[in-house]
Amino acid sequence: MTTSHPFDHALRLEAAGGDSPGTFRGHTSPDYWNMVGPFGGTTAATALRAILLHPALLGEPVALTVNYAAALVEGPFTVTPKPVRTNRSTQHWTVELSQADANGDAGVVMTATAVTAARRETWSQSDTPAPAVIPADAASRLKVSSVAWTHRYDMRPVHGVIPQVWDGSGTDSLTQLWVRDDPPRPLDFPSLAAMSDVFYPRVWLRRATRVPAGTVSITTYFHADSKQLAQCGDGFLLGQARAQAFRNGFFDQTAQLWSEAGVLLATSTQVVYYKE
Amino acid sequence: MTTSHPFDHALRLEAAGGDSPGTFRGHTSPDYWNMVGPFGGTTAATALRAILLHPALLGEPVALTVNYAAALVEGPFTVTPKPVRTNRSTQHWTVELSQADANGDAGVVMTATAVTAARRETWSQSDTPAPAVIPADAASRLKVSSVAWTHRYDMRPVHGVIPQVWDGSGTDSLTQLWVRDDPPRPLDFPSLAAMSDVFYPRVWLRRATRVPAGTVSITTYFHADSKQLAQCGDGFLLGQARAQAFRNGFFDQTAQLWSEAGVLLATSTQVVYYKE
Repeated sequence: MTTSHPFDHALRLEAAGGDSPGTFRGHTSPDYWNMVGPFGGTTAATALRAILLHPALLGEPVALTVNYAAALVEGPFTVTPKPVRTNRSTQHWTVELSQADANGDAGVVMTATAVTAARRETWSQSDTPAPAVIPADAASRLKVSSVAWTHRYDMRPVHGVIPQVWDGSGTDSLTQLWVRDDPPRPLDFPSLAAMSDVFYPRVWLRRATRVPAGTVSITTYFHADSKQLAQCGDGFLLGQARAQAFRNGFFDQTAQLWSEAGVLLATSTQVVYYKE
Repeated sequence: MTTSHPFDHALRLEAAGGDSPGTFRGHTSPDYWNMVGPFGGTTAATALRAILLHPALLGEPVALTVNYAAALVEGPFTVTPKPVRTNRSTQHWTVELSQADANGDAGVVMTATAVTAARRETWSQSDTPAPAVIPADAASRLKVSSVAWTHRYDMRPVHGVIPQVWDGSGTDSLTQLWVRDDPPRPLDFPSLAAMSDVFYPRVWLRRATRVPAGTVSITTYFHADSKQLAQCGDGFLLGQARAQAFRNGFFDQTAQLWSEAGVLLATSTQVVYYKE
């Protein structure tokens, strides 16, 4: 890649070759560091990018599920996408991301599955219009935290900002925000996968209480094809996230991402571990 | 298993032993046959049951993603669950289901990933109350079709029944229905996984037009633990499903399942292929 955008740098992968054809080597990026590991969105995007780099690829992403099996540590990793089944118009993938532990033993830190497909034009219908909110230009940028990855997104909440006072006063879990890469970057499938995970843990908003929380598994469906993504350029997306249930250590979080023109690009759901 | 319930029969698995420790053998069931293969809910339940039978299992199911890579044909199959990462309170699984093709060559027909966890009591909150609908007793049973698996569920739609006239008049994709096994069977994780997939394709309802459609990938999050499932006994569940977008050959379908007492047991999402 010729671009110097930090997202492309974070997603840089090189064919391992030799004894491991089909395996790619990557390295965690300080630009997208979260509290105790990389931003999960970057990890999901890395799984997807490995698939997109595979010479056997058929079509474009339709579905991606990423399971965060263990925390990645700073350093190199390997990612191995496998086309386990190729049909006439769909292809099924499994992906494993491994990293050596302190003893040098390789362990699986992420598993993923994906479906890619050669899509054809059909009857289409969007039944989830973008909510009516103030435009991105009129919204204030979220005050960035000390966490590196939050600097890499221009996030402008229009509803459900991170609580300013942690006083247990929360009443609902709905966040709506404008988001784009910082610096701006033309939208593609990996960046859309990453943006599906920019919403801070719903439990913080619902309870106005900060508790340890981390995504365990995320599934994103891509409704748009590459033409529709290209039409977004490097503009803002409108994102929405909300939880359906919090129960004994895990909650779910559903999300939608629309283009600035109101096209539903992706829908996503994740299950998140929380404490207390 | 000592039960003679057709669901337990369909999910019967035997350790393959020999050269394939950790692999189970199963067989498709005519009782849950769909149009060109087994009901996808049974396949998802089989993946989950293989995990639950594994001697290394930690905790109970939290998340399950099942990808339908190719149509199963009538006959035997093997299913192999692997605990790829075991943490202190969570465990990550991959599952492959394979079947010999007409030439006797084994091919992957389903991949799955799952997360199981030892859950602890925490602050909990359900933000998705069950919709107010007429009780199951007052609702009429769906006229069963010629498709075998639909006979195995007592489904009582209260909103969004399958169109009676296929005249292109559809306006929305929302279905609400009461559902339980037929004959009744105490709820467990595999049956809950299967019931997450009982909703007929949303595209039929939205368009009032019958087009070929089939689930490509389904993700279910289990909010309830085994105690809460046991409290449901063999009573009805209230299910709800709706699509967010139909686009160029694929639509998504979100679903919720509540107990008769109104407890949100599971949330689910799937992406479905459709033609035309």
